[in-house]
Amino acid sequence: MKTLRFKQALSPDGFRPMAVHVDDKGLITAVEETDAGPWDGAIALPGMVNAHSHCFQRVMCGFAEAAVGERSFWGWRELMYRIARKITPDDQYVIARQAFGEMLAAGFTTVAEFHYLHHEPDGSHSTAMAEAVIGAARDAGIRLALLPVYYERGGFGQPASEAQQRFVHASVDEFAGLLARLGDTVAGIAPHSVRAVDPAVLPDLVAAAREVIGENAVVHMHVAEQRAEVEATGQATGFTPAALIAETCELDPLWSFVHATHVTDHDLRLMLAAGVNTILCPLTEANLGDGLFPAKEFMAAGGRIAIGTDCNARIDAIEELRLMEYAQRLVRERRAVLAGKDGLGALLWAHAARAGAGVLALNAGRIEPGTWADFVVLNDEPPLTGLEPHRALDALVTGGDRHNIAAVYVGGQAIEAAGETAFATTVNRLCTQA
Amino acid sequence: MKTLRFKQALSPDGFRPMAVHVDDKGLITAVEETDAGPWDGAIALPGMVNAHSHCFQRVMCGFAEAAVGERSFWGWRELMYRIARKITPDDQYVIARQAFGEMLAAGFTTVAEFHYLHHEPDGSHSTAMAEAVIGAARDAGIRLALLPVYYERGGFGQPASEAQQRFVHASVDEFAGLLARLGDTVAGIAPHSVRAVDPAVLPDLVAAAREVIGENAVVHMHVAEQRAEVEATGQATGFTPAALIAETCELDPLWSFVHATHVTDHDLRLMLAAGVNTILCPLTEANLGDGLFPAKEFMAAGGRIAIGTDCNARIDAIEELRLMEYAQRLVRERRAVLAGKDGLGALLWAHAARAGAGVLALNAGRIEPGTWADFVVLNDEPPLTGLEPHRALDALVTGGDRHNIAAVYVGGQAIEAAGETAFATTVNRLCTQA
Repeated sequence: MKTLRFKQALSPDGFRPMAVHVDDKGLITAVEETDAGPWDGAIALPGMVNAHSHCFQRVMCGFAEAAVGERSFWGWRELMYRIARKITPDDQYVIARQAFGEMLAAGFTTVAEFHYLHHEPDGSHSTAMAEAVIGAARDAGIRLALLPVYYERGGFGQPASEAQQRFVHASVDEFAGLLARLGDTVAGIAPHSVRAVDPAVLPDLVAAAREVIGENAVVHMHVAEQRAEVEATGQATGFTPAALIAETCELDPLWSFVHATHVTDHDLRLMLAAGVNTILCPLTEANLGDGLFPAKEFMAAGGRIAIGTDCNARIDAIEELRLMEYAQRLVRERRAVLAGKDGLGALLWAHAARAGAGVLALNAGRIEPGTWADFVVLNDEPPLTGLEPHRALDALVTGGDRHNIAAVYVGGQAIEAAGETAFATTVNRLCTQA
Repeated sequence: MKTLRFKQALSPDGFRPMAVHVDDKGLITAVEETDAGPWDGAIALPGMVNAHSHCFQRVMCGFAEAAVGERSFWGWRELMYRIARKITPDDQYVIARQAFGEMLAAGFTTVAEFHYLHHEPDGSHSTAMAEAVIGAARDAGIRLALLPVYYERGGFGQPASEAQQRFVHASVDEFAGLLARLGDTVAGIAPHSVRAVDPAVLPDLVAAAREVIGENAVVHMHVAEQRAEVEATGQATGFTPAALIAETCELDPLWSFVHATHVTDHDLRLMLAAGVNTILCPLTEANLGDGLFPAKEFMAAGGRIAIGTDCNARIDAIEELRLMEYAQRLVRERRAVLAGKDGLGALLWAHAARAGAGVLALNAGRIEPGTWADFVVLNDEPPLTGLEPHRALDALVTGGDRHNIAAVYVGGQAIEAAGETAFATTVNRLCTQA
């Protein structure tokens, strides 16, 4: 049992001076307004949830930007596959440990790993790769929600390529066996995409997941990230990716579509009607030249948007939110697109933290009793210096970055965010000859 | 006379281990390849030039993002005017000192101040406001290129509003007197825009500037930042803003168009034929919902693009370059838009630093004899750790930020970048009631 005191904590009712009581498991038992310090921080926010990460791709940062080959998502994917094939379980640990340390420093207290690098480099099936991710999260101190990926083919009517062999399971039963062996860090499943998974299999997959993991097992899928995927889906099935999934599954708020960049108005209505969440990865979607999701319309209609760092070229919760808003401004040629009357920063942070917890069915993302005591505490460095909380959050989201974070707490414990010293060697071995 | 040694310095010929000899004025007298330390840094870059700043707007960071009033550039401008009216010379010093300190920490060794807040709050004409900027730059240690703004009206056929009175000069002669009094920090002039200056006056203005300042006096103008400006110019004159300027002036490489967001293909050809530079302010253009300049076509045709922090809501040379590339990727749905075969980061940094010096007719922006010894030295923090220079620069521009800067040198002197302690008080007094 402990108590943390914040001069201004972003609660569901706005900023309040707050004493937060935390039990030995790390759950908030009670909150109360207080005037009495000593303070554990001036401005505290619910920890941000990184709702979509492929942590191994952190190793590629700096190695995928030259104008060689096809300047497209698909050319980038080829390079990514070449590196992914070489990653051993030890490499996976080192990279994940580095990426998770950076995530904590950047404001993320939970990470959802969309984990598809299942098998070992020689093709043998084991849980060593997943266990490397789990061990790295434990050692870094970040809350992990593992989402094992189901993958079966290279595209409509195409078998998985050699480069994709490490991702593939032979059957839903085999995959369900993996889920059972991985235990309680598994929050749900990730059928990769309608390219990589026959939608006819989805109902069995979801049923298996809910049986093994529980009724709250979440389902995340990549949907409509690139136009070529939408076109191929249309040619093969006559549907958009979103509509195809809705044809075969009963969608609900445990479902999330990652990216959803090129959804149609019909897709949007379908998502909103079923309560399907969107997970945006603004920095990655920019890096990969994906395009822009209609975030304003979706949020205005009550849709929930979580954020993720995806390819992890840059890891910064604050810049993800900035680019989420700024990309909308650039394309619409308007200001304050996702803002409210109180401003932009507190609204976006609260929305994304809460939505991020929601897409993982996790009791987190808001500072109230019954949720995990996961917090981000801001410092008073520029551009926040001397500002009251709403203005400080607006300054943070437009002018700040991860270095405005003074401390992070996971389950009530202050975490010393640190990298992994073996990382540089791993980068150079895996990427320099790629 | 001193010598600085960098393990890898970005020279016009690429990265080289380099000894740089600097004279007592701060100019590079010679460079030579060397294997011998001790090293003053692992990776050194030419200092970035901030080619477009309104430093007083730094005070607004966090105060202009709420969704109130018109969610547009023009609504933002109203708020900015309300704050600008109150700024005294002492305030101007405090704000400039803070902004310039942040610029140095963020990789900018030179700032071009597009200075229009000329007169004192009570309307009296003096040089106190400009001198506050000059004093702040001297005390912060940044190289200043002052660009006094000429302003005469509120729009086509409209007198200057009351809120614009502090910007206005009664005649070219009066303005030329100001230039003469401000001395050698003045690098050129800034006729504000075709909205605010009758283009018929431009030839006289340029002649006066070249007489007072010298043959290298540069000319910067805001051009086509917002569609409403392009439309108003068309209605009033039948021209686009760029074509209207070209009708009345002989353009040359001493001219720069700031933003140039909504230029036509004809405007682009005209700029390229005359060697007119573009100054982009990617973070501000996103914040203000301006839109996107066709940077790829302009650079591919040999056009030079400098960068600026403009409204200074965020001050970070690295993120400016990232967003310059990423905004192009988002809209074109391609990758590596401005990249070359060696990558993205070194190319963009070298281009922008050189172009930034070019738009100020300054001998800087490249590490070679005869230029100012202005450098940025990177640290080895993530995501740069252990990478060779080209990959480190790609990691910097996609994954890094101002905190990857270990040191900055201006004229061969290491500068301790620091803020201004009185800044927070000034912010709250000027903005909280705005």
